[in-house]
Amino acid sequence: MSNESSLENRLRNLEERLKLLEDERAIRQLINSYGPAVDSGNSAAAADLWTDNGVYDYKMSVNEQVVAQQLDKQGIADMLEARLHQTLIHEGAAHTLGPAYIEIRGDKAIATNYSVIFRRIGMSVTVYRVAANRWELSRTAAGWRADKRVNRLLDGSAETRELLAAATMV
Amino acid sequence: MSNESSLENRLRNLEERLKLLEDERAIRQLINSYGPAVDSGNSAAAADLWTDNGVYDYKMSVNEQVVAQQLDKQGIADMLEARLHQTLIHEGAAHTLGPAYIEIRGDKAIATNYSVIFRRIGMSVTVYRVAANRWELSRTAAGWRADKRVNRLLDGSAETRELLAAATMV
Amino acid sequence: MSNESSLENRLRNLEERLKLLEDERAIRQLINSYGPAVDSGNSAAAADLWTDNGVYDYKMSVNEQVVAQQLDKQGIADMLEARLHQTLIHEGAAHTLGPAYIEIRGDKAIATNYSVIFRRIGMSVTVYRVAANRWELSRTAAGWRADKRVNRLLDGSAETRELLAAATMV
Repeated sequence: MSNESSLENRLRNLEERLKLLEDERAIRQLINSYGPAVDSGNSAAAADLWTDNGVYDYKMSVNEQVVAQQLDKQGIADMLEARLHQTLIHEGAAHTLGPAYIEIRGDKAIATNYSVIFRRIGMSVTVYRVAANRWELSRTAAGWRADKRVNRLLDGSAETRELLAAATMV
Repeated sequence: MSNESSLENRLRNLEERLKLLEDERAIRQLINSYGPAVDSGNSAAAADLWTDNGVYDYKMSVNEQVVAQQLDKQGIADMLEARLHQTLIHEGAAHTLGPAYIEIRGDKAIATNYSVIFRRIGMSVTVYRVAANRWELSRTAAGWRADKRVNRLLDGSAETRELLAAATMV
Repeated sequence: MSNESSLENRLRNLEERLKLLEDERAIRQLINSYGPAVDSGNSAAAADLWTDNGVYDYKMSVNEQVVAQQLDKQGIADMLEARLHQTLIHEGAAHTLGPAYIEIRGDKAIATNYSVIFRRIGMSVTVYRVAANRWELSRTAAGWRADKRVNRLLDGSAETRELLAAATMV
């Protein structure tokens, strides 16, 4: 190989590897901005973490009944403006998202992590909700955004275990 | 553009982008070393995460009164050596800091994250304190250091929500 | 210095610095995949995060007695298949691992972080176990793997504080 083509190969190799690390940082930034957005009441910013056709798919327990939700972008903003969430953040809540296992393939990525919501009740703080999350992401003109976030309670169900099983490294 | 200038542009571009990722790693390292430093009783190392003129600005509830603190570097070390913190770590405590949303502009950076302190009481562990953190950081000759850390309880106050609102991605 | 050697130096410098960031990402991926592996019941994948001679060294409290464990790779898989862990994940558990402070020296690395296990009991979630972790890692032909993971309860003991003290940045 000539020196010139070898040089070109090394530069391209560096550029590709660097791009992957930048993609990973962008995805971490997206995930790490979710909690501050929803806990500060910045509902539009939170909804804008999804693509225009994005979906937030979650299940919650209400009076021991599991209720499934499939929210589109407007539905996410509406849910964050509704009474339940507003009460939560005005009493004091932290939507904490842990470090994610992130797989990137070109313009698509999957990130898997845990979320823990802490809720203030009077002078004490309680663990309100612990869940597993699967983020399906796309590179868009505006940067990485979520096509779908699936959130499942750590309730021992096969469905939640399967969501987590897909994040295996080896 | 000649081959040579094009080559120079690509190298400079790589160098700048790599520097940003290295800066981000250095800031993550700083934040991730705080918990181990204070939980191990390594008070000097914890204080050294701040610049010489650095400030730790936090509020705590004492008997349902909120007490504001503005500690300088020596004040941070003193607080960590004082009875309250020493009791905490000798009974068993974990000052956990979550993944941060990090914005870097040249030699300055802002990082926003949640902190959760777990405290051992006998054979059980309790959630002792959940807070939002804003880290204002500078590049120094010794690496990145904190000019200011603002820590506010997740208590539903407008002040805490505003701290988090500043971390919005989009 | 000639242009050519200067160019070679810049390329090598970029390649080395990029490799360190890639190593750090690989180590974060390893740690972030542990929780999903064990909570999904993927015991073989969890055990494969260790090298062939790897050890998981942990202490647990059983009826107020501290029991020390030194598990090899098969022992890790067996522990995860045993009744205690299977009960935990079928009732609902989240083995969350926080962001790690990571030092890399060539083909060896040390990562230090906190782990918090949340456990579902009926309709509520409790903090089941909070611990400090020291991961001793090696680069292998298959990527980074753990030679040893030491896990110690945040119980106020000198041993746990010493584990954390080793992670000091400055």
